Amino acid sequence: MDAGPLVDRMLAGDRPALARLMTLVEGRAPSVPAIMSRIYPRTGRAHVIGITGPPGAGKSTLVDRLATHLRQAKKTVGIVAVDPSSPFSGGAVLGDRIRMQSHFLDPGVFIRSISTRGSHGGIPRATRDIVRLFDAFGMDVVLVETVGVGQTELDIMQLASSVVVVLVPEAGDAVQVMKAGLLEIADVFVVNKADREGADRLEQELLQMLSLRPLAPWTVPVLRTQARTGAGTEAVLAALDRHREAARGTKESEDTRRIGDVVDIIDEEVQRRLRAAFAADGDGVGPLLAAVRAGTLDPYSAAVRILADAGALGALLAKGTHG
Amino acid sequence: MDAGPLVDRMLAGDRPALARLMTLVEGRAPSVPAIMSRIYPRTGRAHVIGITGPPGAGKSTLVDRLATHLRQAKKTVGIVAVDPSSPFSGGAVLGDRIRMQSHFLDPGVFIRSISTRGSHGGIPRATRDIVRLFDAFGMDVVLVETVGVGQTELDIMQLASSVVVVLVPEAGDAVQVMKAGLLEIADVFVVNKADREGADRLEQELLQMLSLRPLAPWTVPVLRTQARTGAGTEAVLAALDRHREAARGTKESEDTRRIGDVVDIIDEEVQRRLRAAFAADGDGVGPLLAAVRAGTLDPYSAAVRILADAGALGALLAKGTHG
Repeated sequence: MDAGPLVDRMLAGDRPALARLMTLVEGRAPSVPAIMSRIYPRTGRAHVIGITGPPGAGKSTLVDRLATHLRQAKKTVGIVAVDPSSPFSGGAVLGDRIRMQSHFLDPGVFIRSISTRGSHGGIPRATRDIVRLFDAFGMDVVLVETVGVGQTELDIMQLASSVVVVLVPEAGDAVQVMKAGLLEIADVFVVNKADREGADRLEQELLQMLSLRPLAPWTVPVLRTQARTGAGTEAVLAALDRHREAARGTKESEDTRRIGDVVDIIDEEVQRRLRAAFAADGDGVGPLLAAVRAGTLDPYSAAVRILADAGALGALLAKGTHG
Repeated sequence: MDAGPLVDRMLAGDRPALARLMTLVEGRAPSVPAIMSRIYPRTGRAHVIGITGPPGAGKSTLVDRLATHLRQAKKTVGIVAVDPSSPFSGGAVLGDRIRMQSHFLDPGVFIRSISTRGSHGGIPRATRDIVRLFDAFGMDVVLVETVGVGQTELDIMQLASSVVVVLVPEAGDAVQVMKAGLLEIADVFVVNKADREGADRLEQELLQMLSLRPLAPWTVPVLRTQARTGAGTEAVLAALDRHREAARGTKESEDTRRIGDVVDIIDEEVQRRLRAAFAADGDGVGPLLAAVRAGTLDPYSAAVRILADAGALGALLAKGTHG
């Protein structure tokens, strides 16, 4: 399929075209590299803000508040919510989506959920490309919210230029923050539900841990909010603006990132071709796979034999091309 | 390197050889497929139990208790702790490791931490292979503990035959459990710190959510513990034994899993070769990469050109072979 006309419409401001492209990107369609190479020259302008933290910290409520403040400042906002897969919710959690409806009629806000169902390491890639679509579409700010606090979520946060880690007094102490790898990625800490018992202690623990870090050009602030009432949320946005200014040019160098992207895009396509070829029970390796199924050959030995045979590997990769 | 003698020593019960092999596997050494194909026939006997839940839920303390009970029952125990990367802790969190020292002198227990530093989707693979090493070594039970609650952690739990989800009253309500994708993977729920306020409510919410699920051969129990005192922890082990019996033969069919393993092992090696070839600035694609670095060609276009050229792709994959 030629996605060219769709890209043209999206770049001209067509929202249904943007949604269509996001669906292609989330499904990791074969046309993804072509789409992304078309929009690439239009990216690099948006402020990409990651919001993460443990379940129940109030991330969605904070995202909602930040979007409201940004709209008051006449900035356009793309929101990417990385939702886990659930057979019950179909990937979207009802409560959040209903709350977000306050923005549904606002043409300056666009909300997209990414379901994590059945991914093969595809979520960080899909998230990265959806963020770039928002960027090319012209959104001033892209907010990326993740539900979990795990390795995939840490990976996703790499694509943000500023990261907010949201915590609540009840969700464990600062040592838990360190254990979850959150200390290293935070550009701004938010202690939400700051009216609850334990907020002072959490704030002090965070400040103490931060004071142990090596000196850096940016001092990570610890801000207190009550996202439900909106208290303190404008200060979060102000801190993010300051961070963006302070961080210009200090993140991973742009050309290293670009070469990493090339490897990653090729990786993904090679994986896709391998899976397609295996699903089609590609001849050449058919007998090996049959032996694995029968339990007479272990998977590692089968893989080693296929990898040792450059011809077989090449044939598999060529076979999957038109998958 | 020929890892054969090392494997022989490990299979004969040599613990330093086991530790050495785990280091190779964690570093994703080129010898991994050879090692794993040697040990594969000796695997499939251990009861692999996953323990997950939000930071601060008391997972490590529960793991420690379960290990103690298992040792009292004369069972040998391998423990895999998937720790996030941290420049401060070096991947291991001091408090937990000190607590675990109660088992350090016991030859029936072996503890291994996996750091998640700089992985390229390698954690689930390293964890899977370390579990298999424990299995081949002859451990009766392997406990896999993850620190985060994200997609990677959900992926890791796929390799367990029984999964315990540990929660505490303060860490948010049952809706948060659903949002984090934990409802779908739990074979046993544990409400830890059950003496705290809110334990009753959390238990009721979980039972209600579970009652909405389609009828299944296994009824997921909700158990209350105080891991610090040990209260209720033996009942968790009993439930896991019952689950193992009930689940025999109902998990993903063995031959589908084996074919998936073949694809995954080839994937990993192809990725390794690509990265090695790119790091060496492989000629053929050198000019393309230079254009990407200079910003005159975008990464997607470069990847598309390399993928379209079967000769260039084959040369890259062959070049990385001796990386």
